Amino acid sequence: MPHDTDESGEDRLIARYFKPLATHPAAFGLVDDAAALTPPPGYDLVLKTDAIIGGIHFFPDDPPGAVARKALRVNLSDIAAKGAGPLGFLLSIGLPKAVDEAWLAAFAAGLGDDVTRFACPLLGGDTVRSPDAVMVSVAVIGTLPHGTMVKRSTAQVGDRVVVTGTIGDAALGLHLRKDAEAATRWRLSAEERAHLAQRYLVPEPRNALAEAVRAHASAAMDVSDGLVGDLSKLCRASRVSAEIDAARVPLSPAARTALSVERGLMAPILTGGDDYEIIATIPPAKLDAMRSAASRAGVALAEIGSIVAGEGAPQFLLHNEPLKFTQRSFSHF
Amino acid sequence: MPHDTDESGEDRLIARYFKPLATHPAAFGLVDDAAALTPPPGYDLVLKTDAIIGGIHFFPDDPPGAVARKALRVNLSDIAAKGAGPLGFLLSIGLPKAVDEAWLAAFAAGLGDDVTRFACPLLGGDTVRSPDAVMVSVAVIGTLPHGTMVKRSTAQVGDRVVVTGTIGDAALGLHLRKDAEAATRWRLSAEERAHLAQRYLVPEPRNALAEAVRAHASAAMDVSDGLVGDLSKLCRASRVSAEIDAARVPLSPAARTALSVERGLMAPILTGGDDYEIIATIPPAKLDAMRSAASRAGVALAEIGSIVAGEGAPQFLLHNEPLKFTQRSFSHF
Repeated sequence: MPHDTDESGEDRLIARYFKPLATHPAAFGLVDDAAALTPPPGYDLVLKTDAIIGGIHFFPDDPPGAVARKALRVNLSDIAAKGAGPLGFLLSIGLPKAVDEAWLAAFAAGLGDDVTRFACPLLGGDTVRSPDAVMVSVAVIGTLPHGTMVKRSTAQVGDRVVVTGTIGDAALGLHLRKDAEAATRWRLSAEERAHLAQRYLVPEPRNALAEAVRAHASAAMDVSDGLVGDLSKLCRASRVSAEIDAARVPLSPAARTALSVERGLMAPILTGGDDYEIIATIPPAKLDAMRSAASRAGVALAEIGSIVAGEGAPQFLLHNEPLKFTQRSFSHF
Repeated sequence: MPHDTDESGEDRLIARYFKPLATHPAAFGLVDDAAALTPPPGYDLVLKTDAIIGGIHFFPDDPPGAVARKALRVNLSDIAAKGAGPLGFLLSIGLPKAVDEAWLAAFAAGLGDDVTRFACPLLGGDTVRSPDAVMVSVAVIGTLPHGTMVKRSTAQVGDRVVVTGTIGDAALGLHLRKDAEAATRWRLSAEERAHLAQRYLVPEPRNALAEAVRAHASAAMDVSDGLVGDLSKLCRASRVSAEIDAARVPLSPAARTALSVERGLMAPILTGGDDYEIIATIPPAKLDAMRSAASRAGVALAEIGSIVAGEGAPQFLLHNEPLKFTQRSFSHF
């Protein structure tokens, strides 16, 4: 017999949990098949997609709201580093049968908080069944004035290298998730342990700094696969090298505590990834302006070294001794 | 020890297999973190994302090139039904360890063929590890003149209902994948069997008809979850109903053969989904022009009924008897 309503289960889930996040007129309240976006004249669109998958990028028992935030924020981090402001995003999620409606409700609630916080509405999406793992793919759309995207490939010799926030927290937080006893070994306070765990769970993308990056950086990218590897990518794209003072790489109190006990943690801190900070190269004449802008935006900014001539991998020096890394960058492949 | 090259495995895979597909200048050859797209002035962007997952939307042993084509084409089908031409797409793929480089090479080769065929270049992407199933999420970006996206919600009473191609082939093809003996029961020739299998494996999106849809249709959507359910969605969004002559729903010779043996196949044909045809409503005065445009585009077009007043589910009549369906639409939820 025909159903009284032809609404499918998917339609119902979308209307209930995702329609409230689709506040942009381009989304038509998610009732159509596609969004129709009228681009702001004179602006370029900055496009990026990143997926996160349960068991790989997050733990299956992570809070659903944190999973949603991470999925959106890893993409927001990319467009911030390119100097773009968020316009909206597309979401595709794969849900195994084991995921119930309470999980989805919490996922949507966390996502909704970030939609508001980052002024980045949902433009459209797809909700599908997945055999096993939760899969969340976001495609974010940012905007910036035509021709002003900050690239990786435009760093200049003599530029200063700056990085936002703190580095290594997420790598240590992930380590703690796999080896809880490390917290005792590293002599972490409960607060320090919670800080590292949270930094792994939910990144803090530096979208507040996007305009300053666009105004002052010669090149930039977000640090997602580790500071050493990502700076290497930036240098390779720009055909330059860099000299970094590892002692100036900004660390949280928690990371400092752990590092004071176990010096070998310098490697995972610098190469572990999941930082979602911005690394940028700043011409010396613009450094003061960049510092002021970061201060106004409430984003910590540390100067850690310089761009130098050459095409080799950047040197990380600790007390004038070059650090060696067995793996410079995180890669699943 | 530092590697000689800092290129990660992911970077290498991207450079080798995906960079050749990133022919649009907005993609910067995939060497940056994001694409920067300058939207054509006076045009809107039509945005859509759809994901397909192994074991759900395709079989894990499907040819990798077919998986890639399906992932792109299910999205191309959506923008065709909205009247938009393709501009490019973002790709995020999750690959389990069992997938080797030969699989990826074949995937990229199939994708590359469709990039050329549909003039839809890769703008950016993300390649991640997946624990178990292959996951492919595409976000496609289409363009059309400002304000001209063809919606679901604008069908008018008196409009004629048309559908492209043939309906039900993919549902029967999927049935054959699960129950190979049905081919004998349905008395299919080898050619008919191959036709149905192929229609499930690789959809034929009707992008050649996009301009005609924009010029002549009052409303349209693509048929992905079954003709009955998708027409219901269009009617609900437009606050109208429809009367459809089921005998006029276009069927392939293979589907006709199967149906002649097993009359009960009418239900899976009309509700099974995966058709990726376009259903559109055409004001009577524009019907001839629409027919001519479809003919010029080389796309078969069948008139199957009319939009009528009312808000109930559309009626499908076979020899003046209303058909009943236990499930009007495909839904994983």
